[in-house]
Amino acid sequence: MSEAFARMWRSLEPIGREATGGYVRYSWTDADREGRAWFVDRARERDLTVETDRNGNLWAWWGDPLAPGAGAVVTGSHLDSVPQGGGYDGPLGIVSALLAMDALRERGFAPARPIGVVAFTEEEGARFGMACLGSRLLCGSITADRARALVDRDGLSLPAAMAAAGIGTDLGAEPDRLTRIAAYVELHIEQGRHLADRAAPIGVASGIWPHGRWRLTITGEGNHAGTTRMSDRRDPMRTLAAAVLATVSENEDTRAGIHRVDVTPNATNAIPSRVTAWLDARAADASDLDKFVATILARTEEAAARDGTVVTLDRESVSPAVTFDPALRERMSLALDGPPVLATAAGHDAGVLASAGVPSGMLFVRNPGGVSHAPAESATAEDCAAGVAALATVLADLTAP
Amino acid sequence: MSEAFARMWRSLEPIGREATGGYVRYSWTDADREGRAWFVDRARERDLTVETDRNGNLWAWWGDPLAPGAGAVVTGSHLDSVPQGGGYDGPLGIVSALLAMDALRERGFAPARPIGVVAFTEEEGARFGMACLGSRLLCGSITADRARALVDRDGLSLPAAMAAAGIGTDLGAEPDRLTRIAAYVELHIEQGRHLADRAAPIGVASGIWPHGRWRLTITGEGNHAGTTRMSDRRDPMRTLAAAVLATVSENEDTRAGIHRVDVTPNATNAIPSRVTAWLDARAADASDLDKFVATILARTEEAAARDGTVVTLDRESVSPAVTFDPALRERMSLALDGPPVLATAAGHDAGVLASAGVPSGMLFVRNPGGVSHAPAESATAEDCAAGVAALATVLADLTAP
Repeated sequence: MSEAFARMWRSLEPIGREATGGYVRYSWTDADREGRAWFVDRARERDLTVETDRNGNLWAWWGDPLAPGAGAVVTGSHLDSVPQGGGYDGPLGIVSALLAMDALRERGFAPARPIGVVAFTEEEGARFGMACLGSRLLCGSITADRARALVDRDGLSLPAAMAAAGIGTDLGAEPDRLTRIAAYVELHIEQGRHLADRAAPIGVASGIWPHGRWRLTITGEGNHAGTTRMSDRRDPMRTLAAAVLATVSENEDTRAGIHRVDVTPNATNAIPSRVTAWLDARAADASDLDKFVATILARTEEAAARDGTVVTLDRESVSPAVTFDPALRERMSLALDGPPVLATAAGHDAGVLASAGVPSGMLFVRNPGGVSHAPAESATAEDCAAGVAALATVLADLTAP
Repeated sequence: MSEAFARMWRSLEPIGREATGGYVRYSWTDADREGRAWFVDRARERDLTVETDRNGNLWAWWGDPLAPGAGAVVTGSHLDSVPQGGGYDGPLGIVSALLAMDALRERGFAPARPIGVVAFTEEEGARFGMACLGSRLLCGSITADRARALVDRDGLSLPAAMAAAGIGTDLGAEPDRLTRIAAYVELHIEQGRHLADRAAPIGVASGIWPHGRWRLTITGEGNHAGTTRMSDRRDPMRTLAAAVLATVSENEDTRAGIHRVDVTPNATNAIPSRVTAWLDARAADASDLDKFVATILARTEEAAARDGTVVTLDRESVSPAVTFDPALRERMSLALDGPPVLATAAGHDAGVLASAGVPSGMLFVRNPGGVSHAPAESATAEDCAAGVAALATVLADLTAP
């Protein structure tokens, strides 16, 4: 298994990898096209039936999902990355899905239901700002009109980017497709150190914290950086500094940060006229999240009053708390002899499907350093093999005749 | 005069102007090429002799600067802008120089010395990060080797950019050219409200505050914005916030700010691995400037120790205090019937020439709102005409037979 894993991993590894060691695999770019072609090739080698849905998500089927009978079991993840991301977040779930299918076939297993492998598009929201865009469109948790209005950092719209990639843009929900999915199981690299701390290679997810992204626009007054009197300045960078410090929480159940900024004009010797900053905030509890974001905004507004700037807050996307299907979680735990169960503060397509009523669950693979969304993200070959084995066990259990 | 000013202004106004009303006139770009062509056309219309020096600065001569006899009187400024800058910072000095020459000719004045109009390149340092690059090269206050190593935000080197613009790249000091300049007088929009507060259209500069640019590199650890425990984060944005707040001074004789940042990777859901920030600091007194920068660094380092990040400070360019030639200043003040005399915290090519031993001075034109380095920068038509008249008076006095 380890050798098959290493071989498949190597074939995917160079795609979108930069000299820094980080990945830049944004949706509907050249790297994405290569990643999608890689997926199609691996699926065809396995005689799986490949289809692209109306939202650009890729599906590979063992068995016919349209045949009458029991609903399908789907597994998978995403191929896109954050800028300078790690190699495991997303791809590990897809590689493990294909190899788990191989393992079932090698042992002569004949599933009683169709098994699908899915590669969702734009899970990270790195290009169009909306996390889990492909699964949200599938589930109708974002309207096609709103998705069509999304633009990337260069102002290119989602439909224009998809069309340029040769993909149809008849975006929208697919309730029929959803109802044919009896269970969705996503394997993912752990983004944290729970499993490392517990010396366990594999974990099962209990749920996902409520979390979201908000855009802070801080408007000041452009002016000369040297000649403008300190008391005359209306410098939005000062207000940004207050906002950043307001995100620092002593409470581990509320987490936030500002990690993306856009400064206009971003010149050494000119006080900016505007700073746009993106707030990422998450909490174990939804009302704590609302309170935390309100506190951050209030502190930023206080600073703005002091600095002579004006702040507006726009909600870009907020995902409610997800509790994964308890029956599915129990069944996976039983099949895997009781691995650790943990909640995560990271959003995933499995959370979107769960919120849309699809029985969903997640497996995590140990991440020794806990780092994710950065090139230092890692998993050992042994743990990756353990992940494939665990996923094969779960799939066999869920599709047993 | 006002009509001639308006006509010349209109011919320059569209070059490099964006839809925002701001100017983006970086050196060695298309806008710069248009601006240089505009200068050459205006000079040729006046039968001036045009030359480009080895550093790309443009000169237009009335009279032969190489003829034996008294040294030349040079006036001028620069055509380049900060990103989204105003229209007056730089161009006002060049337009006024050409029109002051017209005024002298209209009144049949025959100068006893050559009069030159100069357009220095990259005064703002907006493209290659080094303010007053053209005049520094001319004066030898930056070595050709150091200048050749400068790169723009896309990594293109200065020589490559100049070569792409069809300009020679035999960079270096020109001491002979300098010794032929008896006086340099730069007219400039005021960047502040001293003249507006004193109801005076024209002022004379006493000197320039010591000032400089430093680059702060704050290295943290890239990681997931949601799953990383607050206590595990090494977030360079927090340290940046502390640095920004450390620049806020209550003392009007020390001014600083951070107005340009570069965040890696600049993703909403990834803690950055690195933030680069540019510090602009200025003070009335050189030792106060050193102490102020040291204090800002110390506070940033304290924050870095708290945040688990590492800070380095690189000095990009520091300009010492300039006191303009007292005899020239007295002579201009006398010719102009004693306008207000004021120091400025802004750097200018006149300061570079003064530091290189060229008797230099500056005239300022009132700026009603005091705004500069932003589209709101302005001067009235009457004050611009008063500026041209004042410059003509000064040139006539300095070149009188």
